[in-house]
Amino acid sequence: MSECSFGHVVIMGVGLIGGSLARALKEHDAVSQITGVARSRETLDLALELGVIDNAESDPVMAMKDADLVVIATPVSTIGPLLASIADHIPAHCVITDAGSVKGSVANAARQALGEKIDCFVPGHPIAGTENSGVAASFAELFIDHRVILTPLDENSETDISLVQAMWEVCGARVVRMSVDDHDAMLAATSHLPHLLAFSLVDFLSQQQRHEEIFANTAGGFRDFTRIAASSPVMWRDICLANKDELIPLLGSMEKQLASYRSMLQDSEGDQLEQAFQRAKAARDKLPKITKSGDDH
Amino acid sequence: MSECSFGHVVIMGVGLIGGSLARALKEHDAVSQITGVARSRETLDLALELGVIDNAESDPVMAMKDADLVVIATPVSTIGPLLASIADHIPAHCVITDAGSVKGSVANAARQALGEKIDCFVPGHPIAGTENSGVAASFAELFIDHRVILTPLDENSETDISLVQAMWEVCGARVVRMSVDDHDAMLAATSHLPHLLAFSLVDFLSQQQRHEEIFANTAGGFRDFTRIAASSPVMWRDICLANKDELIPLLGSMEKQLASYRSMLQDSEGDQLEQAFQRAKAARDKLPKITKSGDDH
Repeated sequence: MSECSFGHVVIMGVGLIGGSLARALKEHDAVSQITGVARSRETLDLALELGVIDNAESDPVMAMKDADLVVIATPVSTIGPLLASIADHIPAHCVITDAGSVKGSVANAARQALGEKIDCFVPGHPIAGTENSGVAASFAELFIDHRVILTPLDENSETDISLVQAMWEVCGARVVRMSVDDHDAMLAATSHLPHLLAFSLVDFLSQQQRHEEIFANTAGGFRDFTRIAASSPVMWRDICLANKDELIPLLGSMEKQLASYRSMLQDSEGDQLEQAFQRAKAARDKLPKITKSGDDH
Repeated sequence: MSECSFGHVVIMGVGLIGGSLARALKEHDAVSQITGVARSRETLDLALELGVIDNAESDPVMAMKDADLVVIATPVSTIGPLLASIADHIPAHCVITDAGSVKGSVANAARQALGEKIDCFVPGHPIAGTENSGVAASFAELFIDHRVILTPLDENSETDISLVQAMWEVCGARVVRMSVDDHDAMLAATSHLPHLLAFSLVDFLSQQQRHEEIFANTAGGFRDFTRIAASSPVMWRDICLANKDELIPLLGSMEKQLASYRSMLQDSEGDQLEQAFQRAKAARDKLPKITKSGDDH
């Protein structure tokens, strides 16, 4: 074991995030072994073949034996049931975290599933990804210079929070902490709403009579704008439903905003339209240049 | 003069599009000389210094003397007035085209400005650009593999249309022809509406109380999605107003689409939401891979 080792790390869900985390931890020699858990034998075989994990396990309970640190990187809707299934099999010293894009629903589900053992669960969210899914798309550099948001619970010990923070920092991430509510409000605005807009635009255009001609006449601006609409529909269904309390009012506000643009057009209010575009450009031009490519799920 | 020469080409508006066209034509040795027209002496000096143009002229009328082919690459709202000012100074054999992002308003303005001489004006639109503006951002390769849409008028001769087509093809573009109405409906969907959505989202977020924190927590997905919101506010004000007849109903449809997503969230209709995302992903995955980077104004 190297000086900074997290021991036996169990990664549940060996997809883009779980696979990339495993690769990064191995590359930095920060684990004694990594066990990957997935329902699909195909995924496990591929992960073993790619050298992403050391051991493959389809049964979460079996994987918990001797686990030091568990990272749940499965779709948000599955985190609660998964925690419930392993609740009675968590080793005494074991710390559990997750990579779910919504934290309120996950924290609630975790409380229900773990009961008194909730102290061992430190909710987290790496702000990283691409529109591609699966272990084949994973790479060790995914988290470098990306934010990871931890939303510690009152029950968490500083030792456990620091352990999870250290794990992400080893992978090159910049870790910040905020409340569950702040996280969900923030991500609804910066990630979930943009994904809904992109899905919505492409969905809308795909239902036009002349959709083939329409898509044939697009260029790079459209490609960039709609790249996130190529993301996993199932994953995004889960995220949107899990964060619906934040998303519903935001969607309402966007509808009002579009309606106000529409009325500016109707009344040919060029000055107002230009001011709106100026506000947007000024904000966009100020975006931190440090932000790297990749998605913000 | 080389075998394929367009003689004395006058480019009015030496910005990203005009400058890139000038560079491409010179690189392919397809002109005897290029005169650049701009109101700003600074732009003209820079264009001369960069070798983009051979002669600089601030007076459009003066530039028309001996012009063989004129390309108007100024904001859409200025094309009509510019045509009106040169209407009495068009040499007999001269062909005029433009690069405006909207064709209906330009064609109407051209008819008014040129009267009986409308036959010499072949409306066109290169589907290319970046979020950067100005001659300093211009480059000869901008149009390679990009579409240029020509929307010929009934009065145009095939000879004149072919000349404009040949000019763009020399620059590496793929030229297609369609009606003015088809162009404006198509571009409203693939370019003008996405720009409005991007401007609208960033504008909306910039007005939130915690906007600084919000923007600090974005990543690559947000950057890509909002890149087009860094485009010129004045140019886009003009484009949106010029194509408002197409844009207004599209905006209305998008509002309804967002409202339907909102009601799916409210009613937790996961299946419907997933189906919508699936439709979008399927359409996005089918986007022609040949499309190159750059914007589709």
